[in-house]
Amino acid sequence: MTFSDTVRAALDNKTKPAGSLGVIESLARQIAEVQQSLTPSAERCTLTIFAADHGMAAAGVSAFPSEVTRQMVLNFLSGGAAANVFARSTGADVQVVDAGVLGAPIEHPDLIQKRIAPGTRNAITEPAMSAAQLSAALAAGDEIGRSLTYEVACFGEMGIGNTSSASLVSAKTLSLPINALIGRGTGLDDAGLARKADLLAEAAQRTPDTLDARTALREYGGFEIAMMCGAMMAASETGRMVIIDGFIASAAALCALKLRPECEANFIYAHCSAESGHRRVLDAINARPLLDLDLRLGEGTGALLAWPLVKAAAAMLREMASFESAGVSGPG
Amino acid sequence: MTFSDTVRAALDNKTKPAGSLGVIESLARQIAEVQQSLTPSAERCTLTIFAADHGMAAAGVSAFPSEVTRQMVLNFLSGGAAANVFARSTGADVQVVDAGVLGAPIEHPDLIQKRIAPGTRNAITEPAMSAAQLSAALAAGDEIGRSLTYEVACFGEMGIGNTSSASLVSAKTLSLPINALIGRGTGLDDAGLARKADLLAEAAQRTPDTLDARTALREYGGFEIAMMCGAMMAASETGRMVIIDGFIASAAALCALKLRPECEANFIYAHCSAESGHRRVLDAINARPLLDLDLRLGEGTGALLAWPLVKAAAAMLREMASFESAGVSGPG
Repeated sequence: MTFSDTVRAALDNKTKPAGSLGVIESLARQIAEVQQSLTPSAERCTLTIFAADHGMAAAGVSAFPSEVTRQMVLNFLSGGAAANVFARSTGADVQVVDAGVLGAPIEHPDLIQKRIAPGTRNAITEPAMSAAQLSAALAAGDEIGRSLTYEVACFGEMGIGNTSSASLVSAKTLSLPINALIGRGTGLDDAGLARKADLLAEAAQRTPDTLDARTALREYGGFEIAMMCGAMMAASETGRMVIIDGFIASAAALCALKLRPECEANFIYAHCSAESGHRRVLDAINARPLLDLDLRLGEGTGALLAWPLVKAAAAMLREMASFESAGVSGPG
Repeated sequence: MTFSDTVRAALDNKTKPAGSLGVIESLARQIAEVQQSLTPSAERCTLTIFAADHGMAAAGVSAFPSEVTRQMVLNFLSGGAAANVFARSTGADVQVVDAGVLGAPIEHPDLIQKRIAPGTRNAITEPAMSAAQLSAALAAGDEIGRSLTYEVACFGEMGIGNTSSASLVSAKTLSLPINALIGRGTGLDDAGLARKADLLAEAAQRTPDTLDARTALREYGGFEIAMMCGAMMAASETGRMVIIDGFIASAAALCALKLRPECEANFIYAHCSAESGHRRVLDAINARPLLDLDLRLGEGTGALLAWPLVKAAAAMLREMASFESAGVSGPG
């Protein structure tokens, strides 16, 4: 009997009709496999938020100005953002990483300093970062991913313009037309959306239709996306469950899956976002997201909202009585 | 400016793009309206599980024997069921009510004794309960609903045969053909499903196509469904948020909405279950469920899994910084 069979038998012997907890049972199996344990745990969780700016933002791909990235970093550090509230509500820890925010370094004792540069270059007309910068971002992410101690890792991002970056990275990695992956981001109106589509078409024309993950990240990525990709790989390699947030985190996850396919075992997809194009990316990697709540905020908010389901799934396998232990009759 | 406008303005002024938290924002609005507060709370939750047996079960409408209802009550009381595990995982309290379990009364200090009778009569051939029994069940539910102290009330059920009861109650209340609402329950095979369909068709033929909620409950209900209906109404009337679990809880909710339409303001629909027919009932009452995880266990498990979303929604409105307080720029 393989370990998978043992897990399945244990689940089927819990005091419930076989399979009646649906997706929660699939989650329990996944966590048990990763932890190689019939008493798995997903009790503790860290959200790591990566923040960085995008040279593209100056061209007008977002409804918000770049200065908001920096302001939101301070908001995260003072506990006032949605991600902070959801972390307190669910019981997760939060850490914030400056991966490359525009302007001078932000002085704050709790901020993790991993600045690659004060923002990427303008990816509409030139590569967003150098090969050395990409390697540095991936390495910083690797270090952060390895430093995690809890069973569950959520990753979030903040970076004005980064839905554009995620659209381009995803389109090139999946060989999809860029138009299939363009959405309103944080809230563009019709005119803004049309301008964004023109700008991203121009950006996409600079390179071949298909790029490998490293090249896609270098050409179009953000420092926060590349660093998150590195962290996702390292967190998986060190046995954490990794909850993938929304559209931008999915672009990082997509690259992580290309660079290290074994990540698939550890990845849990939190939700399908309201950002048009997210469903296409999720479908392309056969991901079944847990939630569908029209979220489009990022920051890891969707991952945090999904975590209680992951936690409950592990607890179910670990703590539920069996038909024998509870003296409950089976079907028949 | 109405209170609704004030709530909407407060949400739009949180440090996030307007509307970017989707369904979580709708939830926050709903809780704020019920509590008439801009700092609402859904921090504490009680799950009340009602257990009772069904005369129909002896006819073979379920994959499990009636004795399982009693065994599961003991499992709830010793903390080994899925509902207990999810309650511990999410931080909810659990209480268990004997609404009418077959056999002698169950002696246990933690069990709430509200037995109407040791099971209903066989609703395939006669009314499940008398008018006096229905009134007693609704009154016991009312008392339990009023005794709740936490902001959030989840209700669950246990009763072998109660998907059949819920199908009949829902069909008659909504004037839908019974065939539209018959499913596999806890796991009938094809032959079992065909037999169940025949039996429920026979049961449905005893009465007119449309029944008012009280008559539907008396003809086809279970004591646990009627008591839950009473508790849902009382919990709503006393200002609790009520999270509706799966197919059986939705039948109780449907009756509660018919008997006290104001309940709509307090009801939150946890999930769309894998039990065929649940979607029809949810659509009929314009309910948008929060989760879609192929659950079909009952016990309040789906309601407990949805509670963290409700809790986070209230916390979001209560605790998130505004653009002004955080010094964050709005869309430019």
